[in-house]
Amino acid sequence: MKYIEGGICAARGFMAAGIHCGVRPNKNKNDLALIFSEKECAAAGLFTTNQVKAAPVKLDIETVKGGKARAIAANSGNANACTPDCDENAAKMQAAAAAVLGIPAVETLVSSTGVIGQRLNIAAIGEGLPKAAKLLEHSPQGSDAAATAIMTTDTKKKELACVFAVGGAEVTLGGIAKGSGMIHPNMGTMLCYLTTDCAISPEMLKKALKTACGVTFNRISVDGDTSTNDSLIILANGLAGNPEIVSEGEDFMTFTAALTELCTEMARKMAADGEGARHLITCTVSGAADEKEAETMAKAVISSTLTKAAIFGCDANWGRVLCAMGYSGVEFDPNSVDITFKSAAGIVPVCKNGMGLEFDEKMAKKALSEPEVEILAAMGSGAGQATCWGCDLTYDYVKINGDYRT
Amino acid sequence: MKYIEGGICAARGFMAAGIHCGVRPNKNKNDLALIFSEKECAAAGLFTTNQVKAAPVKLDIETVKGGKARAIAANSGNANACTPDCDENAAKMQAAAAAVLGIPAVETLVSSTGVIGQRLNIAAIGEGLPKAAKLLEHSPQGSDAAATAIMTTDTKKKELACVFAVGGAEVTLGGIAKGSGMIHPNMGTMLCYLTTDCAISPEMLKKALKTACGVTFNRISVDGDTSTNDSLIILANGLAGNPEIVSEGEDFMTFTAALTELCTEMARKMAADGEGARHLITCTVSGAADEKEAETMAKAVISSTLTKAAIFGCDANWGRVLCAMGYSGVEFDPNSVDITFKSAAGIVPVCKNGMGLEFDEKMAKKALSEPEVEILAAMGSGAGQATCWGCDLTYDYVKINGDYRT
Repeated sequence: MKYIEGGICAARGFMAAGIHCGVRPNKNKNDLALIFSEKECAAAGLFTTNQVKAAPVKLDIETVKGGKARAIAANSGNANACTPDCDENAAKMQAAAAAVLGIPAVETLVSSTGVIGQRLNIAAIGEGLPKAAKLLEHSPQGSDAAATAIMTTDTKKKELACVFAVGGAEVTLGGIAKGSGMIHPNMGTMLCYLTTDCAISPEMLKKALKTACGVTFNRISVDGDTSTNDSLIILANGLAGNPEIVSEGEDFMTFTAALTELCTEMARKMAADGEGARHLITCTVSGAADEKEAETMAKAVISSTLTKAAIFGCDANWGRVLCAMGYSGVEFDPNSVDITFKSAAGIVPVCKNGMGLEFDEKMAKKALSEPEVEILAAMGSGAGQATCWGCDLTYDYVKINGDYRT
Repeated sequence: MKYIEGGICAARGFMAAGIHCGVRPNKNKNDLALIFSEKECAAAGLFTTNQVKAAPVKLDIETVKGGKARAIAANSGNANACTPDCDENAAKMQAAAAAVLGIPAVETLVSSTGVIGQRLNIAAIGEGLPKAAKLLEHSPQGSDAAATAIMTTDTKKKELACVFAVGGAEVTLGGIAKGSGMIHPNMGTMLCYLTTDCAISPEMLKKALKTACGVTFNRISVDGDTSTNDSLIILANGLAGNPEIVSEGEDFMTFTAALTELCTEMARKMAADGEGARHLITCTVSGAADEKEAETMAKAVISSTLTKAAIFGCDANWGRVLCAMGYSGVEFDPNSVDITFKSAAGIVPVCKNGMGLEFDEKMAKKALSEPEVEILAAMGSGAGQATCWGCDLTYDYVKINGDYRT
């Protein structure tokens, strides 16, 4: 596969737009995104596991059951959750988007992201949707506008697209996403929309999405909080002309592999742009009894507040890494664990067989000062391996979240 | 029961001392504590659930199996964990303490707290123990010196003592403790030593300790990290002269109730003095299906990074409270939840039946500016109720933990 430009509009037949409609007071910030396919799509979605689900999430869960969709409307600035009229507003948003696009409401998905418990300005969205529909375009600009419109505390726009061959046809896959707080395994406050022109059945599309999500978005954490609004949605309109993927086999594997790679990059972008983050932390646990145990331990490490604070301080405090593995719930022999810090600036082994090694503190500090820091924990229990991604805990995280509403 | 002075030395027959022996470079900070009973005691202990256990913890787990002990030696400044000679050093520390006190090694408990993976200066402890033994005294000063010696990043000394009647005799119970990071349900980096002159069998003492710990130390969180060194130890020497408690019944209930109340106060002190904390956060969930579910939800709230950051900002962002309950793993109807913030400055209902209420932001800010903030979440599932304690997430937490080792 090869990365290309174009984001959510890279695949054939997909258009997008983003505007400021008035959900946010700041007129310079887009707050409404619209994504549209000229042809009906197979659709699949994965949503927050939180018991408290925002109204649009509850609606989308029903909508994707049909396996078909053509459009996504999403606002930032308000989560449309926990208000007396949130369900009604989600339905209104869905109906309004469907009407301006001339498609059935049951093929229209809706998302909201922002503050919980404040009423959504549905009138602004109702007025904004026709404007956004007029601006829809199959272009990198359309993708950019939509990507900007779903950003909340993100500092960087998250867009990716790639091409790869399936059954002799060139397939394009692209997407946009937003982080950047309330990010935790089983998805955080993340929205991610993916589009592809691959021909694939709704069932196989969902299977591919679950596989990709399990080893990517479900392996990142910013702050341990799982939000009420997480949504990962993929639309596939079949315009690439490949033989439709309707079962497992080579084409399905090719598609799933490309999807997983793109989702990995997207997940890394989210973790790296976690609220206040200065470092992307990548933790790989290898030699665990199985992949599940490796994942559990790697998640504990990237979620450990103390490890995150140490990386912020560029402090090679590996005891916190071993400690986090120790309370993860996995049983293992601490005396079988080797820990190494690694970055573009160097490789620093700090622990061998569960015991501290002598190491050059200056060298370690230099290695940990890089934007991406890898924590490698190798153990002797088996062949299980997993990588999880997180970010450091900084003053800015506290600042951003100490006064988010005002 | 009535609180009194004297801490760990309040109960009859207990002596304590604290000195600087040289584990820490700073000569003005005590780093070695010694606690001694003139009479053999029933002993019970609860220790970290972390797979990675510090050497003294592994040794103490064996020691308390005998049900008898007379002394505790504890150092701060080094965790005595994950070094090639940690087990040997823990055994040396135990043998040296036993020798200077003239008691069997199997009746001597040892603890360490501080950095993981650096070699303990056992020579300094060996030289310090005879000096500490000479200073042992049955006095508030002895307790103070010991309490100071186990402090790490604690800003406040944690000492408590109380008297109550058991079987017609006046029983005294006291203790010292340290926090203040790596604190999470199932104990954090906490050390807590309790002494009592109550006559009680080792079996009943352990039962009482487990009951008290379950609803106190296991319900606090500072940062979600469970340390390698947590230890909660109680010694009971029987000098109060009450009829020995050897089974459940009124005396056992009286003793357990007093122990639970003292542990509650100690746990609150730990949470309030969490690293960098400005606010003690008390979350009570009521109306849950059962106590376990109430506890799970209350723990999720006080552990939520986003809720902790909001309280730091005195921001009544109740959506984060409901969100944390939602991802706790408990199934419930979000529309049955009422949320209220409460403090000495006022009571602010913010959510009714899962929906946001209009409230006075100024009043809310004022209420949340108090040192102790209560979060009350009432729901309609049953009679389950539980209270958990935590603290806010502040710039100082990040600062303290960004560079702890140096």
